[in-house]
Amino acid sequence: MKDKISIIGAGLVGSLLAVILKQKGFDVQIFEKRKDPRKSGAAGGRSINLALSHRGIRPLRVAGVYEKIEPYLIPMHGRMMHDQAGELTFQPYGKEGQFINSVSRAQLNELLIESAEEAGVEVFFDHKCGDINFDSNMLHFEHGKEMKSDLIIGTDGAFSAIRKKLQFTDRFNFSQHYIEHGYKELEIQPKENTFRLEPNYLHIWPRGNFMLIALPNADKTFTCTLFFPFEGNPSFSTLKTKADVEAFFEQYFKDALELIPDLSEQFFTNPTSSLVTTKCEPWHKNRSILLGDAAHAIVPFYGQGMNSGFEDVRLFVELAEELDWNWDKILPLYSSRRKKDADAISELALHNFIEMRDHVADPDFLRRKKLESQIQEKYPKEWIPLYSMVTFSDIPYSEALKLGKLQKKVMDEFLELKESEVNYDQVIQRFNALKKGD
Amino acid sequence: MKDKISIIGAGLVGSLLAVILKQKGFDVQIFEKRKDPRKSGAAGGRSINLALSHRGIRPLRVAGVYEKIEPYLIPMHGRMMHDQAGELTFQPYGKEGQFINSVSRAQLNELLIESAEEAGVEVFFDHKCGDINFDSNMLHFEHGKEMKSDLIIGTDGAFSAIRKKLQFTDRFNFSQHYIEHGYKELEIQPKENTFRLEPNYLHIWPRGNFMLIALPNADKTFTCTLFFPFEGNPSFSTLKTKADVEAFFEQYFKDALELIPDLSEQFFTNPTSSLVTTKCEPWHKNRSILLGDAAHAIVPFYGQGMNSGFEDVRLFVELAEELDWNWDKILPLYSSRRKKDADAISELALHNFIEMRDHVADPDFLRRKKLESQIQEKYPKEWIPLYSMVTFSDIPYSEALKLGKLQKKVMDEFLELKESEVNYDQVIQRFNALKKGD
Repeated sequence: MKDKISIIGAGLVGSLLAVILKQKGFDVQIFEKRKDPRKSGAAGGRSINLALSHRGIRPLRVAGVYEKIEPYLIPMHGRMMHDQAGELTFQPYGKEGQFINSVSRAQLNELLIESAEEAGVEVFFDHKCGDINFDSNMLHFEHGKEMKSDLIIGTDGAFSAIRKKLQFTDRFNFSQHYIEHGYKELEIQPKENTFRLEPNYLHIWPRGNFMLIALPNADKTFTCTLFFPFEGNPSFSTLKTKADVEAFFEQYFKDALELIPDLSEQFFTNPTSSLVTTKCEPWHKNRSILLGDAAHAIVPFYGQGMNSGFEDVRLFVELAEELDWNWDKILPLYSSRRKKDADAISELALHNFIEMRDHVADPDFLRRKKLESQIQEKYPKEWIPLYSMVTFSDIPYSEALKLGKLQKKVMDEFLELKESEVNYDQVIQRFNALKKGD
Repeated sequence: MKDKISIIGAGLVGSLLAVILKQKGFDVQIFEKRKDPRKSGAAGGRSINLALSHRGIRPLRVAGVYEKIEPYLIPMHGRMMHDQAGELTFQPYGKEGQFINSVSRAQLNELLIESAEEAGVEVFFDHKCGDINFDSNMLHFEHGKEMKSDLIIGTDGAFSAIRKKLQFTDRFNFSQHYIEHGYKELEIQPKENTFRLEPNYLHIWPRGNFMLIALPNADKTFTCTLFFPFEGNPSFSTLKTKADVEAFFEQYFKDALELIPDLSEQFFTNPTSSLVTTKCEPWHKNRSILLGDAAHAIVPFYGQGMNSGFEDVRLFVELAEELDWNWDKILPLYSSRRKKDADAISELALHNFIEMRDHVADPDFLRRKKLESQIQEKYPKEWIPLYSMVTFSDIPYSEALKLGKLQKKVMDEFLELKESEVNYDQVIQRFNALKKGD
């Protein structure tokens, strides 16, 4: 009989992990504090959408569930910037044919839970974990049930109950840090059953210290998200009346305002939510381990929250297989190897907010993008832009972060030259020299 | 009728605060989860001693309790370094007549609880706070009692129950970070009713990556503390047998070993404890606030944990008086003003560990100390060494940290000269220029 594995949290990461571990022959069960979303109709609420890309797709293929998910994806080939006059500018995400995919979180979660059940995983909803004993591997649920397992995996998100218990064990490092911005979701309805904006792009209204974005949904709506400071002027605290909200959108997001006739109703009905980064270490204790947001919750600005969680699943299973499923070896090694990559994507995600809300509309940024695309054209193997390393490759995040810093250094140097004076061979030589010196 | 104030935690900071607030006429009560230490005999256990200095003494005087405490203090005029051969070197802490004071935590705590009760404060022991409602200012204790207050102050230490509740409110930033070293206390008994080491010093055995220190107690014992890594070689993990411990002390702390005949018994009886730094922000929510370790727990290496907590009390009460006891103004202003100083002493305390365990025995450090004492002699008002700013002044910690960094920069420059070439007027001019440029 193979080991009994208990997964806490039937979110995206937990459900996918369950599918794969069940396929490997383990006795897998998931405990989820919420009700079954397929019955409670969570998918019928507001649409939260995510951007699925390479690192997320790969483990979905490993699990054999990608084909089932593909029909629900809407490709986004790049950023479509909206300036204050409503003029549009397109920035591709990568090379021709490279794109990210807008997908509904609720839809994807339901498909993954379904896949887990089809694979033979038992999913227990309405099971809130009340306590965990890290010595005896015993889980205690709030309604009295107990469960002993060979391995406990906490995939219960940014406010993980398992991590909360770890936090009060000795020598557990932990931080939670909120940024000064919150967000609010707003919906653009279709018109005569067609999208109101071009669907195959991630739309951005960059406005310096704040921004609006819009991602397409399969039902031809767009989910807009306003990322905006809680305090200061303007901020959530200064938009007190419907007139305030409309005047603000009139000034900064005129073309979006026209697409949301019930803007101020939505604004005051939908919640204002906060954005947190959490870090902790170690991720494991004895036979328990955290994966995904439970281990490393990040801000959403690189579109890597789910993708990094899915990559956790792939790397964890690959290492486990390599170490012949010896959990006592796997858990500490996985944690210590993966930690630096989680820290790196955490940093990249915070930084990308500044890029999205501010730099994308900046002439210097555009010159840099142009220089970079020319370097890449001449040296497609030697020079992969940072965004592409993060989004379209398996290069460890920490390596991508390091290389991205060197690329920035090289570009800073060559941006001082006139465009006609740039020698691309020299650029790549300089980059290679910096990499070696590192 | 004046406001009802509930203080959670009858430790050092809570008890002192209670005395002062009661003297101001408030209806003050303290809730403490432990039993009354005067009855349970906590003072009879191992001696943990602290170093009381200027910032701690000042609010004790404000409360009128310093005279009561003074007889229990043992002045320490400087560091007495023990090298591996047992040779001693003295480094004064400040100018002639400046010293810090070794005091028993248990003794001091009992005196402060007694003072609170004498002032008319009700102290409820065996009252563990189970929950707090930040909107209604209602405290819920584990045995069912409830208490509504106008102001709730959490002085319940590094693992504060009040802070734990704040942590799960939105937009509360928090971190806990453990250093790689732990500590173990050991006791040196008196011989024929006399101290076995010179009592008026803080004894240090600096050994690079680890150290032993010893502070005198009123009963003529010394409490030694070994600060030592948990892992690596040597570390707590490599000292497995009595023979290991004795060989280790024989090699590194020979003169101390001779004073602790039952060393290895003590070593395996006494616990190995960890060392944490906690930070959080904001310290307040509505009518609740954290003070002392609950707001900012630090490592003990600058001897400022208790002193910074007592200074919190003084600054909080001074600001409250200035703002006419308007809590809604006081709490946010106190938090935002004091936070940078808490962060500064936190950084200084971590850094001082490296100085104590390593640098104090370093020739470069000694040259620097000598240069500094000469500068100070010529410019006693313009140049106050960092240790003195922290220990013997009211200069805000953040200001001391900033000035200390400039002093280091100046000394780095002048240390390149021969001793005879140093012009002290130039030194002070350079320092003043850096201060202005800042």
